[in-house]
This record gives sequence, C-alpha cells and structure tokens, in this order.
Amino acid sequence: MDTTQLSEKIKKRSSEAIYGDAVNYIPGGVSRNTVFHKPYPAYAAKAKGCYVTDIDGVERIDFANNMASLIHGHAHPAIVEAVTAQMQRGTAYTLATEAEYEFAKHLTSRAKSLERIRFVNSGTEAVMAMIKAARAFTGKPMIAKAEGAYHGTYDFAEVSQYAGPPEWGGIDNPNSVPLAKGTPQAVLDNVAIFPYNDIDRTLNILDKHADKIACVLIDPVPHRVGLLRGNQDFVKALYDWTRRNNALLIFDEVVTFRVNYGGAQQDYPVKPDLTALGKIIGGGFPVGAFAGRADVMKVLDPSQKNLPFPHSGTFSANPMTMTAGKVAMDLYDKEAVNKINAVTKQAIAQLEEAIRIADVPLSITGAGSMFRIHLRPEVPTTYREAYQNAEQKAVINKLLDYLFYEEKIMMINTLACMFSTVTGQKEVDRLAEGMLNAFKTLKPEIEKLHLKQK
Amino acid sequence: MDTTQLSEKIKKRSSEAIYGDAVNYIPGGVSRNTVFHKPYPAYAAKAKGCYVTDIDGVERIDFANNMASLIHGHAHPAIVEAVTAQMQRGTAYTLATEAEYEFAKHLTSRAKSLERIRFVNSGTEAVMAMIKAARAFTGKPMIAKAEGAYHGTYDFAEVSQYAGPPEWGGIDNPNSVPLAKGTPQAVLDNVAIFPYNDIDRTLNILDKHADKIACVLIDPVPHRVGLLRGNQDFVKALYDWTRRNNALLIFDEVVTFRVNYGGAQQDYPVKPDLTALGKIIGGGFPVGAFAGRADVMKVLDPSQKNLPFPHSGTFSANPMTMTAGKVAMDLYDKEAVNKINAVTKQAIAQLEEAIRIADVPLSITGAGSMFRIHLRPEVPTTYREAYQNAEQKAVINKLLDYLFYEEKIMMINTLACMFSTVTGQKEVDRLAEGMLNAFKTLKPEIEKLHLKQK
Repeated sequence: MDTTQLSEKIKKRSSEAIYGDAVNYIPGGVSRNTVFHKPYPAYAAKAKGCYVTDIDGVERIDFANNMASLIHGHAHPAIVEAVTAQMQRGTAYTLATEAEYEFAKHLTSRAKSLERIRFVNSGTEAVMAMIKAARAFTGKPMIAKAEGAYHGTYDFAEVSQYAGPPEWGGIDNPNSVPLAKGTPQAVLDNVAIFPYNDIDRTLNILDKHADKIACVLIDPVPHRVGLLRGNQDFVKALYDWTRRNNALLIFDEVVTFRVNYGGAQQDYPVKPDLTALGKIIGGGFPVGAFAGRADVMKVLDPSQKNLPFPHSGTFSANPMTMTAGKVAMDLYDKEAVNKINAVTKQAIAQLEEAIRIADVPLSITGAGSMFRIHLRPEVPTTYREAYQNAEQKAVINKLLDYLFYEEKIMMINTLACMFSTVTGQKEVDRLAEGMLNAFKTLKPEIEKLHLKQK
Repeated sequence: MDTTQLSEKIKKRSSEAIYGDAVNYIPGGVSRNTVFHKPYPAYAAKAKGCYVTDIDGVERIDFANNMASLIHGHAHPAIVEAVTAQMQRGTAYTLATEAEYEFAKHLTSRAKSLERIRFVNSGTEAVMAMIKAARAFTGKPMIAKAEGAYHGTYDFAEVSQYAGPPEWGGIDNPNSVPLAKGTPQAVLDNVAIFPYNDIDRTLNILDKHADKIACVLIDPVPHRVGLLRGNQDFVKALYDWTRRNNALLIFDEVVTFRVNYGGAQQDYPVKPDLTALGKIIGGGFPVGAFAGRADVMKVLDPSQKNLPFPHSGTFSANPMTMTAGKVAMDLYDKEAVNKINAVTKQAIAQLEEAIRIADVPLSITGAGSMFRIHLRPEVPTTYREAYQNAEQKAVINKLLDYLFYEEKIMMINTLACMFSTVTGQKEVDRLAEGMLNAFKTLKPEIEKLHLKQK
C-alpha cells in the first residue's frame, strides 16, 4: 500500500488500514502479543455482555473475555454505573480510600488463607511482589516453579514458560530455560523447574535446593501446562515439603480464582501461604493483588521500623479498579459461581458430543468456568504431553481462524474458553455448532496430526 | 478501641475508624506506603481540579497529584467525558483497539527518540520491560544505575534505591545495596551502582563491567537523588560510553516526561535509546509505556519467527487508559507545558522569598513543574548530599504535617511539589503563605539540624 492509499483507508477506519499504519508506531503493531494476528488483528469498536463488534462491523460471541478477566462480560451496567460515579470524584489520590478498604474486606472473606491482602496493578506485579515477600520472609533467594506454567512477565517467574523439546532436558531434572534472550544466567540459576503433578521427581528436585528455596510457586489449574488440575496428593506433597524446609507454598490464582467462590484453592485441604490474584477481581480494570498469612504479609507493613519489604505503586489500589472490582466480585457470589460452572459443564458436554459426531481425536480439560481443547484423543496428564509443536499450533490456528471468521466466535489462542456469567444456552449452542463445523472442516488435518504423533 | 466502638465509628466513616479496621485486612492498612501516615492516613472522599476533600470533611490543595500522575488535577471534564463514553463500549477486549493506535501515534510524535512504543500497566512494568528489551537486544545481563535513584519495584531496578551511610560504601565504588530483605545476591551482582553526575567515577565503574552491561539507566531529573538535573556533560559521557561498549542508554521518564513537551530528554543534545513512561500519560488511569529506537524495539515484534522478547499483559493498552491518556496528553500541548512551568517557577520564587523572610537554611531544586525543598542552605549536588537521615526525615515529617493539618496543603513526602495545569496563582499564594508559617513555626528545629550538620 502506498501512503496515499493508506491514509484513505485509515480514514475509513478498517482493521486492515489501522493495522497497516500501527506498525509504524508500535513494534508489530500491538502492545499485547495475545491480540496479534496475521495478516492483521481485528480492532474492537464496542462490546456488550458476551458480544464484541469490530470496526469492520462484525459481531462475535466472546469466549475469551479479555484473557479471562471479564467475569461478567463487557460493560456490565452495575459496574459502569459505580465506576462512572467514582470517576466524577477522581480516579486516584495520594490518600487512602474507602474503596480499597471495602474491597480488601470482601476479598479476604472469600477464602480462609487470604488473611491479609495488598493490591498492585497487574498479575505480573502480583506474582513478582508475592515472590519478593516470600524471599523477605524466609531470607532465601530461589523459587521453584513448574515447567510450562505461565506466571506473568517477571523474569524469575517466566523461566521455562515455553520450554520445548530441543532445550527442556531430561524429565528428572528439567532445564531452566530462559524465555527472553539476554535473561541473566543468575536468574536461571535461582529458579528450579519441576514437572507438574509428578511428586517423586518434583520432591527430588526440590531436595537438591532445599536450603535455598524461598517458595514453591504453582497455579492450581495451570492453563499453559494443559489446564490440568493439580492433583490432591501433589499439592499436599508440596505443602508438606515446604513445611519441612522453611519455605512457602504460593499459588498463582490470577486466572483460577474464578473456579470457586474461594478460588481453585477451595478444592484442596491444604492452603497456600500466599496467593496472587488478578484478572476477574478488577471488574474489567487493571488489577493485581496478593494475599495470605498475616505473619508473612507483615513483611510489607510500613508501620514497622525496619521494614523487610518496602513496596509502593502509583496506581495500586486506585479507586476506579477497587470500585469496579468490588461490584464485580459482589455479583460473583456463590450462586453466580454455581451457575457459570453449570453452563460451562453443559458446554463441555455439548463439545464432547461434537467431538463424537465429527469423530475427531480430540479431548478437553478444564475446571469451573474454563476449558481447553487438546489435539489428542486422551486427556494430557503432563505439560510435555500437552505441549504443542509448530505443526499442532498451525492446526490450532486454523481452527481458531475458522471459528473467528466463519462462525464469529472468539476463543483464547490455546483453543480455550473462559466463560462469563452472561453467557447462556444460546451462546453455548452456537459454540457447539460452530465447533462441530470446524471439526468437520479440519478433520483431515486433525487426523493427520494424530497419525504422526502415534 | 473495642469492637463495638469500632463498628460504631466505621458507620460514621471517619478516617481514624476506617483505618482502625483496615489493618485487619491489609498489612499496615495501606497498599501504597506513600499514603501511609501515623497515626492514620486521611481517606479521600472526592476531588476536583487541584482540591481534595477527605471523608472527615477537610478540603486541601493538592500539590502531590497522586505522586505526580495527574497533570490536569482531578476529574478533568474532558477526560471524564471521553472515558465515560468508552466505558459504555467496554473496558478491555481480546482485540486491538484504535485508542492504542491513536495514542501511540501521538506519543511517538512528541520526541524524536520515541520511534516505537509499547504500553504496559505501570512505571514498574515499563522499567522492567525496558531493561529486558535492552538485555534481549545486546545479549548482556547487567544494568548500571545511579545510587539513590528510584525506578519502581523490579528488583534489579531498585538496588541501592535507599542506600544509607552504614552500607553505601566508598564513593569510588558504591555498594549494590538490596532494598528488600532476601534479594538474591545474583540480582545485586548484576547491578553496577554509580554516583549520579560524577563522570570520572561513573566511567571507571562502568569500565569494570563493560563486557556485561546491557544498559545504563538514568532518570534525567531523579527525584530521590535530590531532584537534580543530570548535567549535560554527564549525560553525554554516558551516551558516548554506551556507544563504545555495545550498551544502551535508557531513560526513566516516568516522572520527568512532564518537564517539556518532549520530556526532560528534550534538553539534551544526545538522545536515549529507550525511554520508560508512566504517571501523567495515563490521564489518571494505571499506565506504563516504553519507547525508543525502532531497531531495539523490534525485539518485541511478534511477527518475527524467533521472537527475542515475548511479552504480553492482560490490561496493557486497555482502551480506558489509552482514551484518558490521549485526552490528557492532547491537552498537555506546548502552551500548557509553558504555562505550568511558568506557574511553578513563580511558586519557587515565592518560596525562596519565604525562605529569606523566615531566614531558614533551606534550598530548592527542580525542573519544569516539579520542585523539592532541602534542609540545607546550599542546593545539594549529589545523592549523598541530598540524603536525609532519620533526624532530617523527622523534621520533614513535621513540616509536612504542619502543612497538611494546619495549612490544608498536600505535598509529596520528600517535601516536593508536582504541579498540575489547574494550579493557579491563588494556590501558589496559599502555598507560599503556608510554607512561610511552617518555616517560622519549625525554624528552631531546622536551625538545630543545620548546626549539627556543620
């Protein structure tokens, strides 16, 4: 496109034209790789409930919900109303706010382990601060995390996030694989990687660094590991190991807090020492938080003379986010949790039926209001089984594109859905129907992949 | 207070009562140490322009502006209007938005060095991602930063942020002092600390780690170092050193971008390779961004096959922040910058007059719409000169409290002001008058400190 053509097209505001110029200001044209799409991403014009319309005029059902962060879908009237009122009174002050107090009181009431809470601005900041709190409390430098697990963009937390076969090493002792080029070796040396849900190997690995490990970090239903639930005995084994070794068990529930009223942790008899939160608790606004044992969180208490962990943030606990989050979480009561989980269960049942009808070698994992489809007939049980190579990713992208362009359905780019409370049977039916069409259309490619894997 | 008394008081919503209960949910009762105050912080009820009213009914002039982030004060009508409209259309999508494109186009037009930009959620995230980009581009692990400089809460960036005499070491080779307990030695080993504005010592220190330093990070007017401008020849020397040593010169302009239309960097003939932004560019909403040379920012471009620096964020570039930020920065045009800087200059002149009238040994540093008062008669020229010990901090807190409670004036806790465009002569007069009263009242303590220092 030459410049004149481009500026004409930009005037018409098509996604193609906007993107064609956006690359001149933003590397690759986007600030979030999750929204990147070749040859160009769709640009959102408006959204309401579980429907999003792009600037090219196409309306789609949204099962991605801004990467699982909109528990009530888009522009929920109660949130819009409360936030509009707050905005008239200001969006941020160099003072405390009642909104923070009210929201802290609410969130800490939802799960027993959440004795004290502190707010930050993103899941990344929540995990980073939680790790720093664990180090400050134990005085030890290392963390241990699961291979393949996503925990935001703090470099210690992102080690081995996308580890692949060429570099991941033997399963008895997975390598600490850097995500970004230039990651200091010192960062890699301070992160022990274990295979999720594999008790014996994990404990062996932890034992090797027992005197240095400040915390064992897990997501109880790690999306990138395969959206597999942490086994009860695995979580118990980690808990017991941390009790024996002056370490903390810390949960990343940024995504999974939606699973129950009190988060995915509600399903386990042992409780994490600290928990990171984010996504849905912001009611659609930037948010992060971390919470846990009062004695551990005390490292942040500025009323102390020798403060172990000084920590602040310009926009942390801003009243816009606190107000939106409080309304959203009040609405996400036990009844709402039961309802969304039931709707999601129904969707999974209909998708399993579609898999049977199309006779394709696929399986589904998930928990609560989340599920993920795998390109294999048996449910994966480990990260390495769930790992998608380039060929598999290509087929997944074809499925996603088919759904996006032909069926007007938006999913998360791992072939996952994260439901909102405003999703009903009508949308579930369209999802099942759209998926069936996608499965039928791409059946030859799905089967070819499966044969190769065998 | 017993429980019944407390719940009665909470019903009445006084700051004292709310805080009394907040400590049961939040460590120390606040999520931001900047708003912490003994015996309790004030809770904000509403704010408009440059005035904030707390829930106890007291109205104050705001010279803190949420830690320098509200360039147009509170609830600016144009921002409220635009954001209210956007909110009706949704607060975040798993799609690109025109708001991001428009804002990226605007910001990159303000300064020549900002060739490409990426948005994140906070200044902390901006500095962290900028450092990771520098590592990815150079393939080297270390950073170098100035003693005492604040760059957010990423652990590498916060080394020696509050270094004090017992631990800071010799000035020829300042120690890498951890901020938080439990900071891994590996982090400290990867951060070289230099004395700001001291060319010879800094170059000597940099030379020692030349093969390992990915970037030299400076704030051009570092608030915590003393709100001193980086000298022209110092910045030039760092620039030249980084050219010779395959390293980048990166600026933290999260606070200082307000200084000129194109940031504090506008005053220097050499330009940074990368710049972190935040605070005012969010229009009152959580924001961060980093921008710079197209070839460096390319490490983030997701259209590449082997992406050097994969990076994403759920709320990055959300349309609420992008919309508020675009309106705020459009309004912060060259005329507005000139005006706010002139009003601030007038305020400094009146405060210098107050210092003369009260005959107290104080001095003022600053740039653009920011200034800071120091408890010494001559302007400090280094971090170690500007460093406040416990005794000095106690006097500063008395000055701040006098202003807050007696004069109804809010400042930043270093005795600094960061103006907004809605601050006028009326507020400047009240500031000068209030300060004069504060100086007179606390003159004996200020003088006693000065005598001790001599």
